[in-house]
Amino acid sequence: MQRIGVLTSGGDCPGLNAAIRAIVRSAIALGWSVTGIRHGYEGLLRGEVVPLDAAAVSGIINRGGTMLHTARSSEFETSEGMKRAAAALDQLGLAGLLVLGGNGSLRGAWELSKLARTPIVGIPKSIDNDVGGTDCAIGFDTAVNTVLEAIDRIRDTATSHDRLFLVEVMGRKNGYLALAAGLAAGAEEVLVPEVPTDLDAVCRRLEEGKRRGKRSSIIVVAEGDDAGGAFAIAEAIAKRVSGYEIRVSVLGHQQRGGAPTAFDRLLASRLGAAAVNVLKGGQRGKMIGLIHDEVVVSDLERAWREMPRFRPELVTLASVLAS
Amino acid sequence: MQRIGVLTSGGDCPGLNAAIRAIVRSAIALGWSVTGIRHGYEGLLRGEVVPLDAAAVSGIINRGGTMLHTARSSEFETSEGMKRAAAALDQLGLAGLLVLGGNGSLRGAWELSKLARTPIVGIPKSIDNDVGGTDCAIGFDTAVNTVLEAIDRIRDTATSHDRLFLVEVMGRKNGYLALAAGLAAGAEEVLVPEVPTDLDAVCRRLEEGKRRGKRSSIIVVAEGDDAGGAFAIAEAIAKRVSGYEIRVSVLGHQQRGGAPTAFDRLLASRLGAAAVNVLKGGQRGKMIGLIHDEVVVSDLERAWREMPRFRPELVTLASVLAS
Amino acid sequence: MQRIGVLTSGGDCPGLNAAIRAIVRSAIALGWSVTGIRHGYEGLLRGEVVPLDAAAVSGIINRGGTMLHTARSSEFETSEGMKRAAAALDQLGLAGLLVLGGNGSLRGAWELSKLARTPIVGIPKSIDNDVGGTDCAIGFDTAVNTVLEAIDRIRDTATSHDRLFLVEVMGRKNGYLALAAGLAAGAEEVLVPEVPTDLDAVCRRLEEGKRRGKRSSIIVVAEGDDAGGAFAIAEAIAKRVSGYEIRVSVLGHQQRGGAPTAFDRLLASRLGAAAVNVLKGGQRGKMIGLIHDEVVVSDLERAWREMPRFRPELVTLASVLAS
Amino acid sequence: MQRIGVLTSGGDCPGLNAAIRAIVRSAIALGWSVTGIRHGYEGLLRGEVVPLDAAAVSGIINRGGTMLHTARSSEFETSEGMKRAAAALDQLGLAGLLVLGGNGSLRGAWELSKLARTPIVGIPKSIDNDVGGTDCAIGFDTAVNTVLEAIDRIRDTATSHDRLFLVEVMGRKNGYLALAAGLAAGAEEVLVPEVPTDLDAVCRRLEEGKRRGKRSSIIVVAEGDDAGGAFAIAEAIAKRVSGYEIRVSVLGHQQRGGAPTAFDRLLASRLGAAAVNVLKGGQRGKMIGLIHDEVVVSDLERAWREMPRFRPELVTLASVLAS
Repeated sequence: MQRIGVLTSGGDCPGLNAAIRAIVRSAIALGWSVTGIRHGYEGLLRGEVVPLDAAAVSGIINRGGTMLHTARSSEFETSEGMKRAAAALDQLGLAGLLVLGGNGSLRGAWELSKLARTPIVGIPKSIDNDVGGTDCAIGFDTAVNTVLEAIDRIRDTATSHDRLFLVEVMGRKNGYLALAAGLAAGAEEVLVPEVPTDLDAVCRRLEEGKRRGKRSSIIVVAEGDDAGGAFAIAEAIAKRVSGYEIRVSVLGHQQRGGAPTAFDRLLASRLGAAAVNVLKGGQRGKMIGLIHDEVVVSDLERAWREMPRFRPELVTLASVLAS
Repeated sequence: MQRIGVLTSGGDCPGLNAAIRAIVRSAIALGWSVTGIRHGYEGLLRGEVVPLDAAAVSGIINRGGTMLHTARSSEFETSEGMKRAAAALDQLGLAGLLVLGGNGSLRGAWELSKLARTPIVGIPKSIDNDVGGTDCAIGFDTAVNTVLEAIDRIRDTATSHDRLFLVEVMGRKNGYLALAAGLAAGAEEVLVPEVPTDLDAVCRRLEEGKRRGKRSSIIVVAEGDDAGGAFAIAEAIAKRVSGYEIRVSVLGHQQRGGAPTAFDRLLASRLGAAAVNVLKGGQRGKMIGLIHDEVVVSDLERAWREMPRFRPELVTLASVLAS
Repeated sequence: MQRIGVLTSGGDCPGLNAAIRAIVRSAIALGWSVTGIRHGYEGLLRGEVVPLDAAAVSGIINRGGTMLHTARSSEFETSEGMKRAAAALDQLGLAGLLVLGGNGSLRGAWELSKLARTPIVGIPKSIDNDVGGTDCAIGFDTAVNTVLEAIDRIRDTATSHDRLFLVEVMGRKNGYLALAAGLAAGAEEVLVPEVPTDLDAVCRRLEEGKRRGKRSSIIVVAEGDDAGGAFAIAEAIAKRVSGYEIRVSVLGHQQRGGAPTAFDRLLASRLGAAAVNVLKGGQRGKMIGLIHDEVVVSDLERAWREMPRFRPELVTLASVLAS
Repeated sequence: MQRIGVLTSGGDCPGLNAAIRAIVRSAIALGWSVTGIRHGYEGLLRGEVVPLDAAAVSGIINRGGTMLHTARSSEFETSEGMKRAAAALDQLGLAGLLVLGGNGSLRGAWELSKLARTPIVGIPKSIDNDVGGTDCAIGFDTAVNTVLEAIDRIRDTATSHDRLFLVEVMGRKNGYLALAAGLAAGAEEVLVPEVPTDLDAVCRRLEEGKRRGKRSSIIVVAEGDDAGGAFAIAEAIAKRVSGYEIRVSVLGHQQRGGAPTAFDRLLASRLGAAAVNVLKGGQRGKMIGLIHDEVVVSDLERAWREMPRFRPELVTLASVLAS
């Protein structure tokens, strides 16, 4: 009987538990057993392991967060720490390790994979959707819907008070989350790092909107937008456009939590089950993804070398449809 | 045939549309017609009126915000403006005016009532629940559930990362919303203006929790707490307690929006219908409330002279139950 | 150190876990320990006990169902079985037993209380709200919101297709759930056991609605309505009114599940904590309730001898407001 | 200035309003105007038209159903009616007609397209996802999540009572909805028309589950499963397996309603905007779809000649993961 390990690394997101469940149950179906490593790479270094049987993952498919917990590890980021982690991993005597992580954590998995004998396979998760090798990372769809629900609520009060709202959404380096939620919410503007933000043009459109009788507006801002965060942009707009009462809302950490959507549970279930199969096939240094509804195995490097396609034309579409 | 008016004043909240629907449909059942005044007292001063027939309030019972919009009016707050408003109101020739508002707006209604010939009746709404003469104001129950949902999500990520979260909730002068949501969310601490916040005691309990193995905690803070907002408290705690990774989340304006809960729709429907009846009975300067499930008519002063009972023992209960 | 027991009996509902959590944590705060009895009275007879410490009730406040499971027990309903249950209970050596149940289960608790030495205190739960001694039973508020959400969805399709929908809601002997959800949903008609259903009048109002241009309607039917269930009433209406495309939807068991609302979590937390205090005070054969926001201790008989007030005038109000 | 038309046909679903909004706003951006045709082909025959300007589609992106209403038309299904419809359409003098429909309605559009001079372009919508030429039809994602939420609730009560639940889901000819929702819900079995249902095998797995200590189970049944509906299957299982308390829940029409998810709003917005562009390009008899995140224009026949790929291996995966 083989034993494999699983850990979750980096920021948590909805769907991790569904993936852990799929890994455990798929492994058991092969006659294998599963060891959970708590607190990500930090826990690997500290030897925090816990056995995961079928009952341990019962009733978790619909729960946000990660039952294995996660943590940042500064030691793991040093070459010394990485070596220690490789040794610690090999000492566990696992037939393979599955790492649920974003592009940074999967890069860590790749480097670890070069030092350790234990085969490692990565599974992409990220509410920012910034992982290559898959159309969509686990957690993104739920986060989009969570943000959307918050903006729908803010829209109620924006309309009632004839206000201009700037809603800041997670996304330091990219605007997938802001774009998807903003377009779905019918936001007047979506400001993202991928498209240089022209505040003059934004203000011009706000003025035009006012002339057409628009009294309230929603601007969705990815936190890493080049024009600054929502507060800075609000100030800049206030200086240029009059007649709007402006409010700012920073959505914060609620974007990471909540019960996963159907899409995320399906994605996590399929990727988790497929990752076990990759280990079974004897592969290492790989990642698993879903591309056009097919499970695809890629080299781990793809996770951070290739981003999902960003569609700047949808930024424009958002403004057109909100006119 | 009589004609009555209705306006919404102050911050918007879920359930206002359900109340407007109830008012319009109840008036029509009496053979009356209804005039909506847009943008609260400001709209009254500007003469922004719109006829409301049965169809106009169709499909709004489940929608957040207020179809009549609302606004702050600085003019209305002057004695000159108040007189102008009274004159404007009387000129509309209404058999009565229904004002949906919080304690400030109902106080405005009371002063207006002393100057105008038109009878005025108030209906309490407030996500802070700070209106007397009723057990519960329209909008409170929905806001509690919205905050609760956000905290449930934050709990997922707090637990996964073993973090201490401070969640700031609306409530400048009182902590009803923070207390109800915090207790329902299983928060470890609820900090409210009504109870002097002893940060030393909070930190002591956090330390004890850590000793018992607690790794994550949620502290819900009403924005008007005497120890400061969530950011200030986070800083103060960081100086006294070590070993917790602290994060802050300010929930913001989403707390005002969203589809009303069943409770708020029922409350709004009953109060709206009852308020029309009060006008029919020829009363003026009154407010309507629901006290122990009975419709109760009170003098308007009750709205700001008497607050719903705050239960400090529930603040303690929250900590006990989270241990 | 004292040890107390807790069991859940009858149909499950949201909020039971929040109550169990409150009981366990309140008992621990008194220095007591808690034994959970699984599967209600059946489990009591079979000796299915499980220790409940603070960690056992962690993370359950927001979960539907009951972690202690529940079951019907035909043996318990016999006088022989009742005696056996009393003996089994006394043998557990508990300082008291808390029973979470509806009016039937609390009646069982009362009879058991007469035979057993162990003091018993009841806590009311029921999605039908048919328990005396409290304004509201645990689970009702969540069930109303669940039904409401389903009707909101059905309304979308009813309107789009210009259809008449009959929605059957739980409630064999009473119509609290149907009335609250129907009024909140803006249903055109609410048919409940408490008010004799006059199908001719219903059809007359449907005809009038059609003449006024109404193309779609929602009729909410409590399953125990005197005119029959939703299918029977649909047939009867189809014979009398033409021009409506009629559809039936029976909401079923989803009405029992889901995360509890803020109200139910608060209610369950307060009643659970208060019930522990009643045991501490040495009382027996009592039930706990919340009446006008005050915790009230009553004799257990009150649970089934007195129903919460039903307001037939709200049935009429629903039709008036939907016109 | 050009004028185009839009109609919604067949069963309603979430996302139709988002598509209508995208069509209207995109057309206006081109300097065109839009005519809405109410009640689908039936309304086309009856000449039920309504102008749609930018304001008419304001505030509808998040609303279920279709603001244009929909209807079945028996006349349209005759060759005589089809001719009349073509004449009626041409008489409207539109530069093009956009039809939002499932595979049947798009087939109707194709036949109409052969008789009418007016160019027609189809947009796929279906909660059953049974439309070719697109990876996903509008409405499917929301329906999956709605069903999932209902099953999550039913799971609470199934577990609490140790029951076996059969949940019947829409899908007369296919099991996309049942499969996606069942896998996401962690259902023990998913029974769909695409895979012959072996009740003996199902019962064998239920028995095995019982031996492993499983006390409750969820079986999701597509209404068109070859073994019958949920009630028939429940009866068949009851005869073969003992020791399970069996309950049936038919989810019904709520599956069609509700606010669209982010995915459906994005999909609808992109397809609506793209369809206007197809008309602008002078094409006719086409449909628009989203294939691997790219907008794809196909001949209308593709809508019913090619189904999205069904993955029977996911049916097996559901059972493996639920073990």
